Amino acid sequence: MRVLVLGGDGYLGWPTALHLSDRGHDIAVLDNFARRGYDRELGVQSLVPIEDLDARVAAWEEVSGRRMTSYVGDLLDAGFIYRVLEEFAPDAIVHFAEQRAAPYSMIDREHAVYTQHNNVVGTLNLMYAVAETNPDIHLVKLGTMGEYGTPNIDIEEGWLEVEHNGRKDRMLYPKKPGSFYHLSKVHDSHNLEFGCRIWGLRVTDLNQGVVYGQQTDQTVRDARLATRFDYDAVFGTVLNRFVIQAVLGEPLTVYGAGTQTRGLLDIRDTVECIRIAVENPADVGEFRVFNQMTESYSVAQIADKVAECFPGPVQVEHLENPRVEQAEHYYNVKHTGLVGLGLQPHLLSDTLIDSMFDIVSANKDHVDPAALLPTVRWTGHLKQR
Amino acid sequence: MRVLVLGGDGYLGWPTALHLSDRGHDIAVLDNFARRGYDRELGVQSLVPIEDLDARVAAWEEVSGRRMTSYVGDLLDAGFIYRVLEEFAPDAIVHFAEQRAAPYSMIDREHAVYTQHNNVVGTLNLMYAVAETNPDIHLVKLGTMGEYGTPNIDIEEGWLEVEHNGRKDRMLYPKKPGSFYHLSKVHDSHNLEFGCRIWGLRVTDLNQGVVYGQQTDQTVRDARLATRFDYDAVFGTVLNRFVIQAVLGEPLTVYGAGTQTRGLLDIRDTVECIRIAVENPADVGEFRVFNQMTESYSVAQIADKVAECFPGPVQVEHLENPRVEQAEHYYNVKHTGLVGLGLQPHLLSDTLIDSMFDIVSANKDHVDPAALLPTVRWTGHLKQR
Repeated sequence: MRVLVLGGDGYLGWPTALHLSDRGHDIAVLDNFARRGYDRELGVQSLVPIEDLDARVAAWEEVSGRRMTSYVGDLLDAGFIYRVLEEFAPDAIVHFAEQRAAPYSMIDREHAVYTQHNNVVGTLNLMYAVAETNPDIHLVKLGTMGEYGTPNIDIEEGWLEVEHNGRKDRMLYPKKPGSFYHLSKVHDSHNLEFGCRIWGLRVTDLNQGVVYGQQTDQTVRDARLATRFDYDAVFGTVLNRFVIQAVLGEPLTVYGAGTQTRGLLDIRDTVECIRIAVENPADVGEFRVFNQMTESYSVAQIADKVAECFPGPVQVEHLENPRVEQAEHYYNVKHTGLVGLGLQPHLLSDTLIDSMFDIVSANKDHVDPAALLPTVRWTGHLKQR
Repeated sequence: MRVLVLGGDGYLGWPTALHLSDRGHDIAVLDNFARRGYDRELGVQSLVPIEDLDARVAAWEEVSGRRMTSYVGDLLDAGFIYRVLEEFAPDAIVHFAEQRAAPYSMIDREHAVYTQHNNVVGTLNLMYAVAETNPDIHLVKLGTMGEYGTPNIDIEEGWLEVEHNGRKDRMLYPKKPGSFYHLSKVHDSHNLEFGCRIWGLRVTDLNQGVVYGQQTDQTVRDARLATRFDYDAVFGTVLNRFVIQAVLGEPLTVYGAGTQTRGLLDIRDTVECIRIAVENPADVGEFRVFNQMTESYSVAQIADKVAECFPGPVQVEHLENPRVEQAEHYYNVKHTGLVGLGLQPHLLSDTLIDSMFDIVSANKDHVDPAALLPTVRWTGHLKQR
């Protein structure tokens, strides 16, 4: 299949492009390098050095013999995405091209507006480009488990059978997102469901959990193929950050009591979930939702796990939670859709954490410890009553 | 109370400003005149001539002795709205300042993007301005009944008690909006609920039905106080359009079988609902939703009602529905919140329709019959499979 990976220069976009290419698909990657720009803005960088996109693509061709096309441009430029769809003529599009950090969206008004504008309008442009170019293109869109929040009922895969006053309907699962970033993905989900309903688009919305790990079967084949490893409090996900803190001898910073629970998955499962979604397209008019996660852990449990595995003393420090989120809550997520299509999860294992310790140890001189501490508070700008 | 009416130059914003001023509140109106710009863009205009904002405000002072402040500017200019909140220091804000026509949002990609950007970012700027200036300001936001779509269960007021697998939660009512405009209001609702949850904002979201009528107790006091009367297929609401078609001797244009059912309300009830909401603020942190409608009718029933009342022959013509919407559906809307606070509805009566015939007859030379026919199709730009 011909697959266009939007955001193909990013943490997960790049390994996804490699994985799909390795499985024999014809791949194009598209990126505007916004993620590299956030590094410059925030004064942080990936712990593991990464090559620029041209060098990555060239290295992959050298290693695998497989060529990828690359497009540099922005989904906010509608003409650009129409031209790419005409030229590359994809069968499927994998859409990672959004601002993806909750704390980044909560820095201030400008960052909230940037995030919602960038994500929602970029996806709107893409929907129109698909509808007007070739509505049979299967759009595989990255959502987030954070769209759901922490409801007091089971989290189903995108849809809920509702019975109310003796009548029934199948409805979009009611969402309670926890940041302007998570909200942007909820807006996308609503816009995409509408596109399926009125235009017959084929959409798979992957509500992804917190990803951990940095290596896949493809990225390990050459150092130039490495993907990002973020550890800062804005873009670093929690397990990656804890591993880095352990190696540095810094305390693992747990927000609040750490009883807040989230769905997680291994980066190797992310790329495999996307392959599975691409190779099993949604039907015409179907808004298909999968919960792309494999296990649930509380933040405190993740800290304990890292502390157990690390060959040395580890402190855990509880910071005041900079976010506004429920501390104690029910959390039971259905995630059988991708398993039903063949996913064989890598569960969180000591082996993986060990390999992450090695990655960090090899690069620990690059760490800026100040970047590990949270600077963005959810109520930071609120005028006191 | 000091009340700032955003979009105070529009069809409903202006009569709302008058009604609140007449009830003794200190009023400021704010507008960017976008609505007058859409007239120029589409080559249409209000059937009843309207004065410009300065003349309206001056006329109201002459008629009532009450002065209003006016601000000209755009919610997309965040600095502007912060300055207005500092200067006017409102107790409540009534927010009509959004692009409000479903067909306008469905013209093409540019209009969809414009609508979502304008509405969502304008409201985000406003939320931040309230949170950072004075989070105790009560924000009364106009939503739409069209956010809900036509679910197969009762439509509750914004929230739904869900029981699922033996557990319960109170969740935002799952939405199924029917245009990019309606979607923009769903996005707003999610953003606002988040603002209540994390910042303790006070928000009332008024999911308004289709409004009919053109005169209120205040607008009739002087011709210079008149509000808009739209009849074109983009901005004209259905009852207003049917009355105009009847007077002109044109057939009433029903989309499809006309079995699609919607909630309606009289313009005099709109202004009264808003007064009630303003004078009974939401609590700190409360996202309060009212369904602002008084009766449900199918489009065919509305056409029959107009035909019955008109003193002459009336034809009804069924056009292919340019929208994608359910023809046959369940529709049962709860709308007890505003009645519980004192609303006494004006139900759709022959007297009102008679007065509308008079308004139209007095202005019928201004009608452009071509503007009555739908030009925007929901699937107009879809590439054929």
